[in-house]
Amino acid sequence: MVTTELMEKLESKEQRIIDIRRHLHEHPELSFKEEQTAAYIEDFYKDVPVDGVETNVGGHRGIAVTIKGAKPGKTIAIRADFDALPIQEETGLPFASKNEGVMHACGHDGHTAYMLVLGETLAEMKEQLAGTVKIIHQPAEEMPPGGAIGMIEAGVLDDVDLIFGIHVMSTMETGKVYYRSGNTQTGRARFKLLVQGKGGHGSSPHIANDAIVAASSFVMNCQTIVSRRINPFDTAVVTIGSFDGKGQFNIIKDSVALEGDVRTMSKESRELVEEQVRHFAKGLEASFGVTTTLEYMNDYPVLYNDPEATEQVRKALMQADIPEVADVLEVAPQPPSEDFAYYLQEKPGCFFYVGAKPEGKQGYPHHHPKFEIDEKSLLISAKAMAAVVASYCGSDE
Amino acid sequence: MVTTELMEKLESKEQRIIDIRRHLHEHPELSFKEEQTAAYIEDFYKDVPVDGVETNVGGHRGIAVTIKGAKPGKTIAIRADFDALPIQEETGLPFASKNEGVMHACGHDGHTAYMLVLGETLAEMKEQLAGTVKIIHQPAEEMPPGGAIGMIEAGVLDDVDLIFGIHVMSTMETGKVYYRSGNTQTGRARFKLLVQGKGGHGSSPHIANDAIVAASSFVMNCQTIVSRRINPFDTAVVTIGSFDGKGQFNIIKDSVALEGDVRTMSKESRELVEEQVRHFAKGLEASFGVTTTLEYMNDYPVLYNDPEATEQVRKALMQADIPEVADVLEVAPQPPSEDFAYYLQEKPGCFFYVGAKPEGKQGYPHHHPKFEIDEKSLLISAKAMAAVVASYCGSDE
Amino acid sequence: MVTTELMEKLESKEQRIIDIRRHLHEHPELSFKEEQTAAYIEDFYKDVPVDGVETNVGGHRGIAVTIKGAKPGKTIAIRADFDALPIQEETGLPFASKNEGVMHACGHDGHTAYMLVLGETLAEMKEQLAGTVKIIHQPAEEMPPGGAIGMIEAGVLDDVDLIFGIHVMSTMETGKVYYRSGNTQTGRARFKLLVQGKGGHGSSPHIANDAIVAASSFVMNCQTIVSRRINPFDTAVVTIGSFDGKGQFNIIKDSVALEGDVRTMSKESRELVEEQVRHFAKGLEASFGVTTTLEYMNDYPVLYNDPEATEQVRKALMQADIPEVADVLEVAPQPPSEDFAYYLQEKPGCFFYVGAKPEGKQGYPHHHPKFEIDEKSLLISAKAMAAVVASYCGSDE
Amino acid sequence: MVTTELMEKLESKEQRIIDIRRHLHEHPELSFKEEQTAAYIEDFYKDVPVDGVETNVGGHRGIAVTIKGAKPGKTIAIRADFDALPIQEETGLPFASKNEGVMHACGHDGHTAYMLVLGETLAEMKEQLAGTVKIIHQPAEEMPPGGAIGMIEAGVLDDVDLIFGIHVMSTMETGKVYYRSGNTQTGRARFKLLVQGKGGHGSSPHIANDAIVAASSFVMNCQTIVSRRINPFDTAVVTIGSFDGKGQFNIIKDSVALEGDVRTMSKESRELVEEQVRHFAKGLEASFGVTTTLEYMNDYPVLYNDPEATEQVRKALMQADIPEVADVLEVAPQPPSEDFAYYLQEKPGCFFYVGAKPEGKQGYPHHHPKFEIDEKSLLISAKAMAAVVASYCGSDE
Repeated sequence: MVTTELMEKLESKEQRIIDIRRHLHEHPELSFKEEQTAAYIEDFYKDVPVDGVETNVGGHRGIAVTIKGAKPGKTIAIRADFDALPIQEETGLPFASKNEGVMHACGHDGHTAYMLVLGETLAEMKEQLAGTVKIIHQPAEEMPPGGAIGMIEAGVLDDVDLIFGIHVMSTMETGKVYYRSGNTQTGRARFKLLVQGKGGHGSSPHIANDAIVAASSFVMNCQTIVSRRINPFDTAVVTIGSFDGKGQFNIIKDSVALEGDVRTMSKESRELVEEQVRHFAKGLEASFGVTTTLEYMNDYPVLYNDPEATEQVRKALMQADIPEVADVLEVAPQPPSEDFAYYLQEKPGCFFYVGAKPEGKQGYPHHHPKFEIDEKSLLISAKAMAAVVASYCGSDE
Repeated sequence: MVTTELMEKLESKEQRIIDIRRHLHEHPELSFKEEQTAAYIEDFYKDVPVDGVETNVGGHRGIAVTIKGAKPGKTIAIRADFDALPIQEETGLPFASKNEGVMHACGHDGHTAYMLVLGETLAEMKEQLAGTVKIIHQPAEEMPPGGAIGMIEAGVLDDVDLIFGIHVMSTMETGKVYYRSGNTQTGRARFKLLVQGKGGHGSSPHIANDAIVAASSFVMNCQTIVSRRINPFDTAVVTIGSFDGKGQFNIIKDSVALEGDVRTMSKESRELVEEQVRHFAKGLEASFGVTTTLEYMNDYPVLYNDPEATEQVRKALMQADIPEVADVLEVAPQPPSEDFAYYLQEKPGCFFYVGAKPEGKQGYPHHHPKFEIDEKSLLISAKAMAAVVASYCGSDE
Repeated sequence: MVTTELMEKLESKEQRIIDIRRHLHEHPELSFKEEQTAAYIEDFYKDVPVDGVETNVGGHRGIAVTIKGAKPGKTIAIRADFDALPIQEETGLPFASKNEGVMHACGHDGHTAYMLVLGETLAEMKEQLAGTVKIIHQPAEEMPPGGAIGMIEAGVLDDVDLIFGIHVMSTMETGKVYYRSGNTQTGRARFKLLVQGKGGHGSSPHIANDAIVAASSFVMNCQTIVSRRINPFDTAVVTIGSFDGKGQFNIIKDSVALEGDVRTMSKESRELVEEQVRHFAKGLEASFGVTTTLEYMNDYPVLYNDPEATEQVRKALMQADIPEVADVLEVAPQPPSEDFAYYLQEKPGCFFYVGAKPEGKQGYPHHHPKFEIDEKSLLISAKAMAAVVASYCGSDE
Repeated sequence: MVTTELMEKLESKEQRIIDIRRHLHEHPELSFKEEQTAAYIEDFYKDVPVDGVETNVGGHRGIAVTIKGAKPGKTIAIRADFDALPIQEETGLPFASKNEGVMHACGHDGHTAYMLVLGETLAEMKEQLAGTVKIIHQPAEEMPPGGAIGMIEAGVLDDVDLIFGIHVMSTMETGKVYYRSGNTQTGRARFKLLVQGKGGHGSSPHIANDAIVAASSFVMNCQTIVSRRINPFDTAVVTIGSFDGKGQFNIIKDSVALEGDVRTMSKESRELVEEQVRHFAKGLEASFGVTTTLEYMNDYPVLYNDPEATEQVRKALMQADIPEVADVLEVAPQPPSEDFAYYLQEKPGCFFYVGAKPEGKQGYPHHHPKFEIDEKSLLISAKAMAAVVASYCGSDE
């Protein structure tokens, strides 16, 4: 009964999880600059009977911890991210951020806290495990290109069979766990388009080349990507968030800089949007005689949860019958992008959600200065991930 | 006193001019099909002491009549066109068209009538003339490519120094003659653009390529030609007169045929519009992945009146002091196009206007089924052109 | 063991189902004109021990058949449509349509055939049923406003608890049954927009009002409905399928008639598209001084399968373990619209799909002149619907 | 022989004109801040036998000087402006501006210099004049609303019959004088349009309202003003010179500020453009649900030269036979706007041009840091204006 014992042990350590989370919350660090946080994690494992701690994995402070079960089996990776955001905290919590302008406003403190205690517990019970658990403590989820790429390139997934991750969600009900199979979080791209025309006096358009008109035409054309090019049952968004064409009312604008944001839910749509944006830039040159410079940067891919792994998560959660979990629900696709998607490009797995809406309070969205989580979600996260791990590595299950 | 005698002779022949005009009015013929009209003109010159009548000039029924003065001098060409329009006459005149669906609704009957009698008169007086008068009876002014091109290619202008023409104008005051120096009537082009996308079911735009959207974008882009490319002090019009995109409401349209009309008042603008239309067609391909087929046909050029020749016209008219002419006025540029412009590309000259608004009646515009002219304008035309010819070839002037 | 007996009886009647289907296939009738088909159905029930046959339900030839079980229970409606399409059959089948230009190219012949035999079988077994089965034979599914509305208004659903329907699908694998919970088929609207400007000569745009430019602007604006107004995770399509602006190249077009097709997958998006199209029509008037006349016609709503009823379908199909059904699969949302959606606005239920792709042949799409179904799908349909009915009304289940 | 004497006197004072101009050039002052310049002008008239010097006319430092001829006659106003521009001079001239960032880069120093000496001369000769000369020294021509309005409102034109002005032109040949009858310089308007939508995350356009898309549609619509609303033989320009929509690539922009510049050559077009811009703003609200705030400011009107007064200028110049003037030419309409237009709305008159292109140098355009004039143009200006005044007030002419 690995699961039962795991649950009991975790339950007994709930306060430790909360304490660790509050410590991390007080000491947030920005993406790619998580020195003290990484040191804290490394230090945590010093006295824990794990089978390996790799540090500085992937060119930054990534940490990979290996726990080998007594019996052979699959290698299951579980990941927690540990970076914070450039936001000035306004929660008024006693353990609010002590770092000016930096805040754990996305719950990564909680991810790390539950994962440490879960790692410790799994290590303590490794004689009962079949297979290997690999814990990935990842920096820099918040900032493209993200910390995942480097750790993957460093080989962290090489010996892994499946990978799982959890996000605590301040906008979802505490006491519920949510999952989705298939394409689950959007992929993301951004672009910058410089439209270079020729300036001139407002009264003499014929000897100038109006960049504002050309750029406006581009904006209108871009609307047809989603309206005409994307499968209506698929999802895509193309937003021109910046149209930098400030000038003098009576001077024809020589150049305009546009910046755009792209979200998609499939590889096909992702490629199709890029292709079409490139076409419209070329078309602008052909039509208006402007020159264009397009920088198009794909970052986080569409997050794809393997259906089989997702079904295993669902079943494991149902069978674990965790008392703090009232329901396990399918959830709609999620608009944000997430660099866990890179792991899922390499290995099957599932990224799922633990409700963390504070009881009796408004649930501020992630990245809000008043973002809070219900700390009950921490034990739930630990137990939920434990259930998933046990479903693969519990020798008797 | 060539002019005085010319005026007296013409005055005595006024009724003949009117009679000829009425005969022609009763028997109008369409452009490039003016068989009987040409025969009538040729027949007219049988007993007239001219020095040459060339027929079938320029591949159609063009006629060139040469009258050599006794003394040496310049060769002055004067032109009258003789085709009619595919319009069913509704004037109710006693001499209304007898040819169903064909009408002299532009005054070319009048042009020919005055020119024949003027030719006869000049021939009668050729002993008093210095230089040569060349009368050009031109078919097919109304239908591109027009009759002028062929006659020019046949060499009708080869020995000509200057060329003049008159248009009677039902919208200008009878008793007044109007002129303008420089660019005076618009040049014209037309185009057809086929936008070929890919049809499909209305619910599945992503596997089709919507030609209506691409063509609409082209229409919007075309507005920028006049608004941004043309010198604001110059004139240009780009009209998409036909957007043939009729289809089923729920079927994505596979192709759209556009037809456009272009008017310009300068060679620069003429070229610039064509260039820009071509750019937008290419841009449509680059932007939307449609294929386009563009036929761009320049026809009549901008009609350019030579300033010196125009000044000579003005002076000749002032000095002739024609009693029926109350005023000689500068006139605004005229929107219609006219194939006399081809002659003026080859030789200096002037195309000017004789007011012909019917007294006490509404002046229906040219090409209207109720179009009428005041027949007083016929003698005025003869005298006005006589004055111009005399100003160059009157030996004593 | 109601289900077992039902399955056996249906299996023994497979050839009759096929014969009925072939008879109907030979004698197709257009929507709202199904005289002989309705008579055939009515005649069928003459000797069947049903408890009521209502005819001419809903102003057309709709038929409602009641079968009362011996024991009390729910009232379950099951529906088959029976109209054909204005298509000239090109299958070359021995039982091809004998009616020129009319064809059962959507499988409604099969729907009716399996339903008649299922109805007979249920009637024969009514002593073993708990509750009531109501069979709805519906005319005119293919032509808006559709036959469902009239039958609903006539009260056909008044005593009904749940309703179910099947569509055979030539594009889905024979031997598989497909279902989807929630919004499953698109809702549909169409619109006509007349844009009235003012005609004029191509060279004088300022005294005209160009309807082609205004209409093109409307087309471009419409692209923003899907790109900016619709939730990216929802589905909507707005197609302008017809832009009737054919005219003369050199005459400014006075009016343009647009026709559009709208597909949505939610009531919110359905209303939002209509609202936005109305806004753009008003905006066109305000912007360009044209007048617009908009006819906006919502027809079939989004087809919404009740999750609980859908789950019951899924479970019933799994438990029935029908030998001819290799798999029961969730299916993606379906682009076409279907008037069964009206029933589901009134009562919970589920509309599901039976694969009917002909073995070893290309599966021509529905509404194609070469459309065919694998007739194995008929028995499968009968058994599948029997399983669903039995899951509610099988007294021992 | 007033003219002859006037010419001789002016010729003898050429160096004084140049000296005054250089003094003013060294001490330029910005519009509405011309304290020292006004004081200089006022001081100049202290010892001149004029019949009245009004100061501070029109709320600023406007000056009106009256010279009464011995005989009765018309009252002719002649105007010179005296403000400078916010430009750092780069000519390297010995008498370059001593005021940092302020420069006479439009020739108003020259206007004032010739006018002072002409005024003095006319005053000296007033016994020979018939009628009254009114000299208007006007501040603030360069900055809307301009100095003319205030002076007119103060009554400066009340007793005036005709008004004349000269502009020296660095881009026109020195030794030539240029005129144009009718509409001669553009009228001007500017506008600011705030488009207020609703911000939001780039991935969720449906709960935001994208101001960049709405504003781009406005820009495209504005192109149709010139292309479809303006008489092709008239002139209008609508430039959106500023599209202030800078933001974050992934945040939907909540508002955009546009600024536009309008040039027209007729009152009709002026009103029509304003009306149409207002329509498009309203149309944007109706179409996209944004709110708009439009500030539309007409400033300088179209400058209209009275044909009769212009003809008088032409004749006077021809007859004066000024040795320094090689030619008197008709000129094309001029793109810039000029507040002299306000005077011409009240009284007939003519604003004409004196060529001032520096000999052997590139003629930098007006408002350029290297702008220079040929100082020969100063005496020519004085003589040209003298000729015009004499043509009205020379008692013997």
